[in-house]
Parts: sequence; structure tokens; C-alpha cells
Amino acid sequence: MTSYTHNTALTEFIEADGTRFTYRRFGNPIGTPMVLLQHFMGNLDNYDPAITDALAMAREVILTDNAGVGLSTGKAPETVAGMARDAASLIDALGLEQVDLFGFSMGGYVAQQLAVDRPELVRRLILVGTGPRGGECMDQLAQDVAPLFGKVYDPQDLMWLPIFFSPSNASQAAGRHFLERIRARTEDRDVTVSEATVAAHSAAAREWGAAAPGSFEYLKRISQPTLVVNGSNDIVVSTVNSYILQQNLPNAELILFPDSNHGSHFQFTEPFNRYATDFLDR
Amino acid sequence: MTSYTHNTALTEFIEADGTRFTYRRFGNPIGTPMVLLQHFMGNLDNYDPAITDALAMAREVILTDNAGVGLSTGKAPETVAGMARDAASLIDALGLEQVDLFGFSMGGYVAQQLAVDRPELVRRLILVGTGPRGGECMDQLAQDVAPLFGKVYDPQDLMWLPIFFSPSNASQAAGRHFLERIRARTEDRDVTVSEATVAAHSAAAREWGAAAPGSFEYLKRISQPTLVVNGSNDIVVSTVNSYILQQNLPNAELILFPDSNHGSHFQFTEPFNRYATDFLDR
Repeated sequence: MTSYTHNTALTEFIEADGTRFTYRRFGNPIGTPMVLLQHFMGNLDNYDPAITDALAMAREVILTDNAGVGLSTGKAPETVAGMARDAASLIDALGLEQVDLFGFSMGGYVAQQLAVDRPELVRRLILVGTGPRGGECMDQLAQDVAPLFGKVYDPQDLMWLPIFFSPSNASQAAGRHFLERIRARTEDRDVTVSEATVAAHSAAAREWGAAAPGSFEYLKRISQPTLVVNGSNDIVVSTVNSYILQQNLPNAELILFPDSNHGSHFQFTEPFNRYATDFLDR
Repeated sequence: MTSYTHNTALTEFIEADGTRFTYRRFGNPIGTPMVLLQHFMGNLDNYDPAITDALAMAREVILTDNAGVGLSTGKAPETVAGMARDAASLIDALGLEQVDLFGFSMGGYVAQQLAVDRPELVRRLILVGTGPRGGECMDQLAQDVAPLFGKVYDPQDLMWLPIFFSPSNASQAAGRHFLERIRARTEDRDVTVSEATVAAHSAAAREWGAAAPGSFEYLKRISQPTLVVNGSNDIVVSTVNSYILQQNLPNAELILFPDSNHGSHFQFTEPFNRYATDFLDR
């Protein structure tokens, strides 16, 4: 077992299909490694050490930046299909034959697409705060939510308090603890996601979310055991989409936490870690 | 700690308001005791020892027969409100000042009503395979489901295989293990629920399930932490009702298991026990 943790793991680079992908890898090298796929506007420093260090006790975890994100080079694709191809390139370049995928929000779209495109590569899926192709209210953000992503905050990471946490005192307090955790790594940090990548990923999210008849059909082809997790009132990807995922995936378990929003796993970190470990080990 | 288990606990009786209630009580007498409220057509022998013995390691569990059920005397009420009054009478007679309630199916209706009527009596709730007043498709059983309750089986407890478990081989196999578990107690068993009680409880379920505007309002008054659990396709109380409970209760967590039906906790017994223990201890 390496002695690296979330906050000390080196930022590493690997070349694949002309892109230099950025990742951090740590944990116990037994069993199936877990690849984490990040949310819109997030980079390597937006994964939560309270989750990754817990999961790393029984597996390797590999935090990733997709093409065009943070220190990864390349142009961010304007489709989830393109993002899934890039994620597969990175996994292949790392020589991994089978992985568990942990996709949060837009990372959850990529995880689903990757499970469809490369089923042999994926053992199990954890999908948090995400939804299916053409889910409910997924083609654009709600009018009162969209501005939360564009505003200037001081410091800027305060943006995650209204986006990931519910308005309650308990949830906001959990949010401030989350911010402390993602600020704790002081050296060798990743760089802010560029405006060009934000624009490309916005287009990818709109394309994925556009309602279309039969848009849930692909879910029947994801036979991997899947754990779907969300908060009771996700203002970014409506909570009902987590229910739709569970109802349409052949082998999915759903957990919805109380008094929570898009980042319920950052709020209910300890139960989340226990449930996720239980699911991964089953 | 008593040395009694699910299968060795004595069947006990206590008088309250003119009814002689029947119960079994065992487990570790620390913390808040848990009172279990049974499903339609079930008696003391229909609780699952794989669940009750696990929960009993860290609390007392009290299996109950409501009025008119099994060896309990009295007339079964034709309303859930009446059943909740009787359950409260039993809890009061036992001298318990606060309990956790575990309600399955119709027992879940009673648990909700009791939490509304006697909030000080209830610390936490576990609601399995159940739904809110006036939930979706709850006023009557589906046309293909109703006959499953009336048929003659040999032996009769085979009725629970299609009612509690999904048609898959894995779920039916879990069902046969469940039947072995509930048959394992050979002495001092309870008696079959009478036709009069079945008729009264049918009326109570219809009244509870009748759609009515604003019928979910009472859920806002159940502030106790609540764990809602169901299978992916509950043919008795549609799964969407578990989602409705979670979305309308102020402090509820939802767990939906894959490839499962009304009795998902009998199928995913070990994860259920871990999740329930995690929830109760939080």
C-alpha cells in the first residue's frame, strides 16, 4: 500500500491519443481500481478527501481530469460521447483492464456512456447527483440556478455552498466543512477550468439532457451493478432523475439522503462511505 | 441481555383497554426499544428472524399482533387510525415511553399514523414497502395482484413468494430462504389471521389509500428521522409511493433495492440490517 493520500498524491500525467491527461492515483492496490469522473467546472481539487481517502483503504482511487479540464491538455468535447471516449483513452493508457466508475453530476453522464460503449471495462458504477439522457428538466438549468454558476464569489469556491448544499443550517455547515477539506491540499494544486471548456461542457450537458422519446432505452444495456445516490432536493439535476435511473437500470440501488441538494455525498460523507463500501464489496 | 432469540422468545400477553395483546420481546435492553408493526395477513410468525435477531443485538425488539390479529383478542379496526390507537395502547401498557417503529406495508401505515398522533412516543421510523395516505394506486390492489392474496397454496405460506419477491431466479431463491426462516420456530407459534380481521384490514387499507387532495400534508408533521425502504418493483404498494414518502417527509432517507418486490428487506437482508443499524445509530 502506498503511503500517499488524497492531499499528498502526486499530480501525474499520461499521454493518450494526443492528449496529456492529468490524474492522481493512490490507495491500496488490491481488487478493482476506482476511476472518478468529475462534475462541471470541477478539477482534481474538487474531489472530496473525506470520500476518496475512505474508499482508498480497500482499492486504488484514480482522480481524473478529462480532456481540456485543469492541467489536462486537449479540447473539451461538446458531447458526453466525446468525453466518454477521452475517459476511455485515459483508462486504456493507464493499462487498466477493468475499473469501478464513480461519476458525479456530468461525470455521471460520462460514466453511463462509458458503461454502454465499453461494457467490459466497467465492473460497477456509482452515480451521484446525475440523471439519464433526456431526463426531467435536464436540458437547461432552472432560472434561479443558472446564475449560481456564473457569479463571482470571494473566494470563488463559495459557489459550491448554494449549488451542492441545501439552505438549512445543518447542510450549509456541512458545506463549510467540505470547503475546508477541498482547500486542505496546499501544494501541487490543479488549475481552474477554462471558459472554453465550460462552454463545451455546457453544450455537452444540453445535448445529453434534451428530452427525446425512448431516451431511457440505453439504460437497459447497463447491466453492471449500480449505486445511485442523490439529495432530497437536487436543484441542478432534479432528484426525480435519480429515481428514473434506478427504475430503468436493470440492477441499480437508490439512496436518497434527507435535507440535501446536488452534493449529498459531501454532506452525508460517513454514511455515504459505508453504503458505497457495502455496495462495492457485495 | 436475555438469551432469548426470535425463535425462542416466549409469546407474551398484556391487557389494555379490554384487549389482550400478544407480543414477543427479546434482545439487548439498551437504548430505545423497537416495536414492529406487521403487514396485512401477517402474525408474530411472519417477522423475519434474520432481521429481528440482527437488530436485537443492540436494542430490544418487540414483535406485535394488533387487535384481532393472531392470538390478540379484540375486534380489528376498519381504519388505520383505529389500528394506531390499539398499537399505542399496547406500547403504553408495556410502559414504554419512547420507541422506534418498524412498519412494513400496512404496518407502515400504522407507524405513520402513530407518529402523527403520538409524536412524543416515537424516536425514529423505519417504513418498508409502504406508502402515504392517498398514494398512487393504493386504494385497491392491481387486478393481477389481488388474487394472490385469496388463493389456496400448499403449504399456504407459499403465497409470499409472488407477493414479496420478484419473478427472477435470484429473488425467488431468496424467497425460499425466507420461508425456511419463518418456518424455523416450531413451538409456541401464533395462529392464522381470521377472515373477519382480513376483511376489517382490507377496509382500513382502502380508506388509507383513497386518493384525496392534500392527502400528503400530514407527512410534514412527521419530523422524526425516517428510513424508507422498498424494492424496485413493489406490486402491492407501488414503489413510487416510497419516493413520495421520502420527498414529502421532512427528514427521510430512501433506499430502493434492485430486482425486488414488496419484501425487499427479506431479500437484501444483510445490507438492510447494516443500513438500518447505521440509520438507527446515527
